[in-house]
Amino acid sequence: MQTELQEHLLELPLFQGMSRNDLEQIVSETKFRQLSCTKGKTFVHEGDACSRLYFLVKGSVTTTCHADDKSYSITETLTAPNILQPERIFGLTQRFTRTFTAKSNCELICIGKKEIMLLSDKYEIFRLNLLNIICTQSQRSNRQLWKPKPKDIRHKIIRFIESRSLRPAGEKTITIKMERLAYEISESRLNVSRELNAMQSEGLISLKRGEICVHAFEKMLM
Amino acid sequence: MQTELQEHLLELPLFQGMSRNDLEQIVSETKFRQLSCTKGKTFVHEGDACSRLYFLVKGSVTTTCHADDKSYSITETLTAPNILQPERIFGLTQRFTRTFTAKSNCELICIGKKEIMLLSDKYEIFRLNLLNIICTQSQRSNRQLWKPKPKDIRHKIIRFIESRSLRPAGEKTITIKMERLAYEISESRLNVSRELNAMQSEGLISLKRGEICVHAFEKMLM
Repeated sequence: MQTELQEHLLELPLFQGMSRNDLEQIVSETKFRQLSCTKGKTFVHEGDACSRLYFLVKGSVTTTCHADDKSYSITETLTAPNILQPERIFGLTQRFTRTFTAKSNCELICIGKKEIMLLSDKYEIFRLNLLNIICTQSQRSNRQLWKPKPKDIRHKIIRFIESRSLRPAGEKTITIKMERLAYEISESRLNVSRELNAMQSEGLISLKRGEICVHAFEKMLM
Repeated sequence: MQTELQEHLLELPLFQGMSRNDLEQIVSETKFRQLSCTKGKTFVHEGDACSRLYFLVKGSVTTTCHADDKSYSITETLTAPNILQPERIFGLTQRFTRTFTAKSNCELICIGKKEIMLLSDKYEIFRLNLLNIICTQSQRSNRQLWKPKPKDIRHKIIRFIESRSLRPAGEKTITIKMERLAYEISESRLNVSRELNAMQSEGLISLKRGEICVHAFEKMLM
């Protein structure tokens, strides 16, 4: 059990570069909570207080984020190994802004904030990893707005999704009315509808009522 | 000299909550570089490697950030006490994305990365402050995109500036051609020109060739 936990930690960026000795000590000293989630179970709701870090170590989860006025949402898939909103455990607003649901049976490790502080006190490399992960996130979202605005409709749609996504790859479901998407990217509803249908016939997306399913976002970037 | 330095540190969010004893010890043990800048001097250029934290402890600086394609820029004023791009000393891209120039004669304190790591090792509160500052930044820029798009031209112009600014207040100069601003917010050049002129006649901004000067951004939010 302990060895398995150690193996899981080894795969997580937050524990990268740590020696096996350190990890052994961490596993024996730190209060980890191991969590098994059956497929379909929502274990974090948007707005929940974030007092611990969640690591996805096995399986996959979907994560949904809503616009502030709830008029649209984007759902993505994250696969293990992954860390869930690490920038939410400190700072001004210590709440999740995303909902996380098990897409397959999956396993998670939780570490409370107190334990995070202890680990970052004791292990310089852990502290550095944590700072690097959060700074990289801040740098990424900060640069989004300074990118030149795309010229054609297709790239506007792609940018709309990309800038609001956790990663520019994988499966995504955008729940949005066509009028709203058209409004957000400042194009006519007709032009947006035409472009989405073209993308559907190219096999990039599937359209349902009020839903755009992207099969593999990376293909749209080619 | 040491007492003055201590007083300066006391005002900085990164040292908030530390006891006078701790600060005394920090001042005597840490390698600080004190920097005096005469008015007009640029001490950080966009693209410079970020290997230290800069704290503005006296005076004011202007900070300019360019769009990725260099087609426009926004210049803001920061006054002491302030910290300059703390999210750039860790993470994927350890370079400043902004240029900083002394607006008045000003004084700064620099702390190298190694010293930052030592301080965050020794003082839990310093570590917590650092994590809180960076997380807050990440949370802020992350939420910008999920806000509903403004309905009228004036609010689109305001949002354009606000979302790219360090703070939603103070004096700002936006160097941008009217065509480009119109393109960025998806309005006609004529409508943008009309709205900017209305804002000028209300005393909110001054227009020069290729430049929009905002006198006090907070007044535009009223």
